[in-house]
Amino acid sequence: MSYQNIEKVKYMIGVDVGGTSVKLGLFSEDGELYEKWSVKTQVFGGGERLMEDIKAAILAKLEENKIALSHVTGIGMGVPGSVDAKGIVIHAPNIGWRNFDAAASLSQKIGLPVFLENDANLAALGEWAAGSGKGKSSMVFLTLGTGIGGAVILDGKLISGFHGGAGELGHMTVNLDETKECNCGKRGCLEQYSSATGIANLAKRYMEEEKQGYEMSLLFSFEEVTAKEVFDCVKQKDALAIQIAEEFGERLGHALALTASVIDPQIFIIGGGVSMAGPVLLDFVKKYYVNFVYTTGKETEFAIASLGNDAGIYGGMHLVAQNFNLA
Amino acid sequence: MSYQNIEKVKYMIGVDVGGTSVKLGLFSEDGELYEKWSVKTQVFGGGERLMEDIKAAILAKLEENKIALSHVTGIGMGVPGSVDAKGIVIHAPNIGWRNFDAAASLSQKIGLPVFLENDANLAALGEWAAGSGKGKSSMVFLTLGTGIGGAVILDGKLISGFHGGAGELGHMTVNLDETKECNCGKRGCLEQYSSATGIANLAKRYMEEEKQGYEMSLLFSFEEVTAKEVFDCVKQKDALAIQIAEEFGERLGHALALTASVIDPQIFIIGGGVSMAGPVLLDFVKKYYVNFVYTTGKETEFAIASLGNDAGIYGGMHLVAQNFNLA
Repeated sequence: MSYQNIEKVKYMIGVDVGGTSVKLGLFSEDGELYEKWSVKTQVFGGGERLMEDIKAAILAKLEENKIALSHVTGIGMGVPGSVDAKGIVIHAPNIGWRNFDAAASLSQKIGLPVFLENDANLAALGEWAAGSGKGKSSMVFLTLGTGIGGAVILDGKLISGFHGGAGELGHMTVNLDETKECNCGKRGCLEQYSSATGIANLAKRYMEEEKQGYEMSLLFSFEEVTAKEVFDCVKQKDALAIQIAEEFGERLGHALALTASVIDPQIFIIGGGVSMAGPVLLDFVKKYYVNFVYTTGKETEFAIASLGNDAGIYGGMHLVAQNFNLA
Repeated sequence: MSYQNIEKVKYMIGVDVGGTSVKLGLFSEDGELYEKWSVKTQVFGGGERLMEDIKAAILAKLEENKIALSHVTGIGMGVPGSVDAKGIVIHAPNIGWRNFDAAASLSQKIGLPVFLENDANLAALGEWAAGSGKGKSSMVFLTLGTGIGGAVILDGKLISGFHGGAGELGHMTVNLDETKECNCGKRGCLEQYSSATGIANLAKRYMEEEKQGYEMSLLFSFEEVTAKEVFDCVKQKDALAIQIAEEFGERLGHALALTASVIDPQIFIIGGGVSMAGPVLLDFVKKYYVNFVYTTGKETEFAIASLGNDAGIYGGMHLVAQNFNLA
């Protein structure tokens, strides 16, 4: 990595604010990642304090690389919370923000244009610009983590929805017979089966209810069974783990087929912690998807997200590029 | 209606090709409907013959009103079938077309620009431009007829989907326990409960299975029970008819809540024959919708389509306006 041509190039910065750390990326104006780094998320002190920290982190990195602030086109930032149409963070529970205009705050402090998005949306933009969605005309992105986040991109534009609820696939009702409540207060939400938490709950249920005939399951050898153990055991052809993966896949396949009926995307991209299981996960989803989906959706593509934890900073970069018509 | 200012104004024409008749509308360039008329759909003779008939119908009307062809900006036409991205009619079973470039055919014959859309999409565009969707930023339009057609409009643009399947809400799987097959070969599709045919089938089932206690139902006094009789009896507080309407509303409310999770529109608009029942129909849908939908979709608006059979010609007008940047 070299900055000899520093006078000739311009840079963009992606910032991904998470509950424990803030990830940052320095990009060329062509979208190439030069360097990435992270700083601790200091929740104490509120939003203004965190924006000071981010400003300091950016200025230090620019200084280190002898890049003048005037060579930075702008900053694209993601936050873990709901963002309204004007870019105000309405509520970000993990970092304790309410009605905070983070973009204006950082922009004022650092003297650069700042563009803001919800973090799941930003990760989707990143995958679209530089990951598994590159070159696709439309995509639906799902992050299977503690919960399920989602985003819809048509022709490179995020669809936010009239009330900001587009892509909230985690709360699609896919099981009318469910008796347990989802965190949202409804019953039978996708999140109850196909998030990391959902898979762990499925594992618990199957391990309690389906013991007979499955005493030899590898799952019983773990102290705690998370989505990782389930898919590790699936790879070893463990029959009980496969049953759990089947229900995970059936619920998710159903939800994605429903999604295809609405917007018929070119590709579905699965990211988040659960997606670390790799392509085996897609096999369980696709087999049910093709049965649930209408004719027009049979050939829709599926992929695992390819940028991992860097999706957010790539999305931040793309947000800047988009706003300056560089993308 | 007067055409004195004929030299100063320009016109647009909307054409809605149906299985039994072709509806036509003459519009001002401001989108005002001057006159509408219809001609019989002559299926015999194929697409070229029907395009000749449409040309003749248009020329006669222009002649009658002393409007020169050069004062017509263009024609927007809807056809009852699948249309690909290039505007070719892939298959229109009711009128026997396969791979017919209807727009090129009519355009060549009459010497005007012709724009083509699937008829359900065109009706949606009409409702958006001049009906219940006027002024809305995004809408989902559903036609409840023999089957269920649908369309998604975001910022005035139809979302067609990568494989042309966007808005195919009729085949969303809303009942995992269904044993009967839908026409599409799947089981538990929305169309099996909430189309005109679906409601008639529900009526049949409820009238067979739920006789006890409902012997006095008005429904038993009809020779044939269609959606119309069901909602007529609902208005008279017939308990059995209300049960049928509840299931109709629960299935449709569920499907629309799922739809809201994907694109979160500003408004849902219900059209088609079943919508003739009026606002009472929406009551049954909304009460289930709010229970199924995620927080962000609770305030989404609902309306009955307001243009009736004219939606298609209004949509044709809008298609012309859109293509000439008049809208």
